[in-house]
Amino acid sequence: MKSWLNIPTGSDFSIHNLPYGVFSTAERSARAGVAIGKHIIDLAAASEAGFFEGLDIPVEVLLKDKLNDFIALGKPTWTALRARLQDLLSEGNEELKAQADKVLVAQADATMHLPVKVGDYTDFYSSIEHATNIGTLFRDPKNALLPNWRHLPVGYHGRASSIVVSGTPVRRPMGQTKPNDGAPVFGASRLLDFELEMAFIIGKSTQLGERVSTADAEDHIFGMVLFNDWSARDIQKWEYVPLGPFLGKSFASSISPWIVTLDALAPFRVESPKQEPEVLPYLKCEGKHNFDINLEVGIQPENGEETTVCRSNFKYMYWNQPQQLAHHTVNGCNINVGDMCASGTISGKREDSYGSMLELSWRGTKPLQMKDGSERKFIADNDTVIMRGYAEKDGVRVGFGEVSGKVLPAK
Amino acid sequence: MKSWLNIPTGSDFSIHNLPYGVFSTAERSARAGVAIGKHIIDLAAASEAGFFEGLDIPVEVLLKDKLNDFIALGKPTWTALRARLQDLLSEGNEELKAQADKVLVAQADATMHLPVKVGDYTDFYSSIEHATNIGTLFRDPKNALLPNWRHLPVGYHGRASSIVVSGTPVRRPMGQTKPNDGAPVFGASRLLDFELEMAFIIGKSTQLGERVSTADAEDHIFGMVLFNDWSARDIQKWEYVPLGPFLGKSFASSISPWIVTLDALAPFRVESPKQEPEVLPYLKCEGKHNFDINLEVGIQPENGEETTVCRSNFKYMYWNQPQQLAHHTVNGCNINVGDMCASGTISGKREDSYGSMLELSWRGTKPLQMKDGSERKFIADNDTVIMRGYAEKDGVRVGFGEVSGKVLPAK
Repeated sequence: MKSWLNIPTGSDFSIHNLPYGVFSTAERSARAGVAIGKHIIDLAAASEAGFFEGLDIPVEVLLKDKLNDFIALGKPTWTALRARLQDLLSEGNEELKAQADKVLVAQADATMHLPVKVGDYTDFYSSIEHATNIGTLFRDPKNALLPNWRHLPVGYHGRASSIVVSGTPVRRPMGQTKPNDGAPVFGASRLLDFELEMAFIIGKSTQLGERVSTADAEDHIFGMVLFNDWSARDIQKWEYVPLGPFLGKSFASSISPWIVTLDALAPFRVESPKQEPEVLPYLKCEGKHNFDINLEVGIQPENGEETTVCRSNFKYMYWNQPQQLAHHTVNGCNINVGDMCASGTISGKREDSYGSMLELSWRGTKPLQMKDGSERKFIADNDTVIMRGYAEKDGVRVGFGEVSGKVLPAK
Repeated sequence: MKSWLNIPTGSDFSIHNLPYGVFSTAERSARAGVAIGKHIIDLAAASEAGFFEGLDIPVEVLLKDKLNDFIALGKPTWTALRARLQDLLSEGNEELKAQADKVLVAQADATMHLPVKVGDYTDFYSSIEHATNIGTLFRDPKNALLPNWRHLPVGYHGRASSIVVSGTPVRRPMGQTKPNDGAPVFGASRLLDFELEMAFIIGKSTQLGERVSTADAEDHIFGMVLFNDWSARDIQKWEYVPLGPFLGKSFASSISPWIVTLDALAPFRVESPKQEPEVLPYLKCEGKHNFDINLEVGIQPENGEETTVCRSNFKYMYWNQPQQLAHHTVNGCNINVGDMCASGTISGKREDSYGSMLELSWRGTKPLQMKDGSERKFIADNDTVIMRGYAEKDGVRVGFGEVSGKVLPAK
């Protein structure tokens, strides 16, 4: 498949991708769009120009500043729209090309917004390498994984209100911490970290009491984004027993603006790692439900060059998304369109594939060298953390763009 | 203050209360109302009849099926509306009385709905008696409280989607549990419990990065409800390390339908318990921020008589609401109108004041006698759990009504 539109080589937003987002321009307020190369297809404008006739997509849902109502139209609609857009963008098709000035917006002229209203956000802990690293660092290297870890995808509820879109600055949080040798103190977090994660977004709601099987789970998933689960390690350490992370996480989580659909990711499916011991029947899963998505994290000091500090891959995940969703709903917990489920930190086996500074610097004992000559154990003020992700196979590239956030000094 | 309306003696919904809720009738869909005695003031109808002139309350916000837009009008508006309603209901005022058939609805003819759209829900753990009981049961009676407990109001993010209004049946959850002597199994929870809690509802939003001081906190609180934080103890026990409660809680939480404002609770303010050691400055709090609210829990077996199993009081709370909110936002976490913050289980010092079956039956070792001759260690199928709460002083009663839920067998 080739487009009449000039799409730069190596673009994340090839004709095979067509991810959904919400953007605004100087001329018009936030609305739905689809990324293609260096452009955005203005879905509202395309609808107004008659390109989506027969698809049964009310233009009102494309004019909203969140995609929830569009997503709620259902998977057949997203899939049909994607097919129509691929057709309209294909070489030889002159329809949209003839009205490109009306329908295409340069990404450089657009501001991206949080694409969905997130009802509930859940964070899993599904990378065995990450959980093993944490257990090794904080508990017992010989029994790094807790007894429940291989039996269920451990997860917890996160804060939905503080999820922000890529580009939003993140303020270093204030909070209560406990020095090893004294009473608790109040001040700025000193151990600010990123967590390299991905998240899926719910595309189909359930009623309270309903369960979603692993077989049906992907029908409930609209797509995926990159997810930086910012973490204040010192705040987290003091607060998290016994009820889990709270203020060490809830000051911000950042997501990439473009939601890549499972349709677009289909060519990159891979087997999940073998699970030992065998999981309970409700967690068993047929087929390929992991994705080979290359991930990397860069840290860019203010006015300095970016240093890549981590290269990982989503395919390492021990628990896959259908298992996460089947577990999440096994007790009848209802899910809503726009809910977000993050993977937990995605670490690989190599030391340079760990998905957090806590692991990369091995709890601060191995500082990372930056290209500008400085060192990092954790994130410094005015650093920008940038995560990127893309899948590539047989000349087809489907990418996520990036999620970035600059850390502002505490206030 | 006395009303021309016949308000039964001992009613929770006196002219001093006037709590807000959302109700529907056979004639008209869900809309805003205020409880008075055995009636509801239909706020939309009252507005349409011209009773709220000068209050600057668009009738549209009263016609919605959630109170969020009304609440967002701000505290001066709620306070002014309450004063107007008290005036209209007062003996000697004939205005509303003359149109009572248009504006008053019998509660018996109304269905109550979830009054707010809950963006985020947080559960605290703020009763020292409860935390001490849990620590004694599961850890070390001599060091029952964890080191952080007296330094900060421990809390965690809960599931907002599964919060339901009183009267909604609750299905016993399925889930994964771990017998002491074997591999994990899948099945219905055997240790289903209630948690007697209260929750406050956010009435004023903040921006990400903003902090709310203890002094300003009550300006951000619209009102309070009774809150039953249903808990599956066996699921919770196996899943909760290290990231906290998840599926052991997220199958349902039930709230009472009427939101009692802090204005109505003002006469019942009491001092908080003395905090030792002294808390950090950001948690210090002037004035009376606890409330003397009598609480009780009853269990009604199917076709059997209700047995009161717990009598507690909200005034026992070690951490008060301003402290909870100041802590919650100290890292810049933003709050939104409709967000809910629950207290955690409210236990008192006496054994019959414990706020959960786990504590009342002392982990199943002391079964409770029911009036119908049966025993309970935890909640049985088809039991209805009913929580009630009211404040009373100098002949003034302000109550919450009840939150009830019938437990249906697992499916």
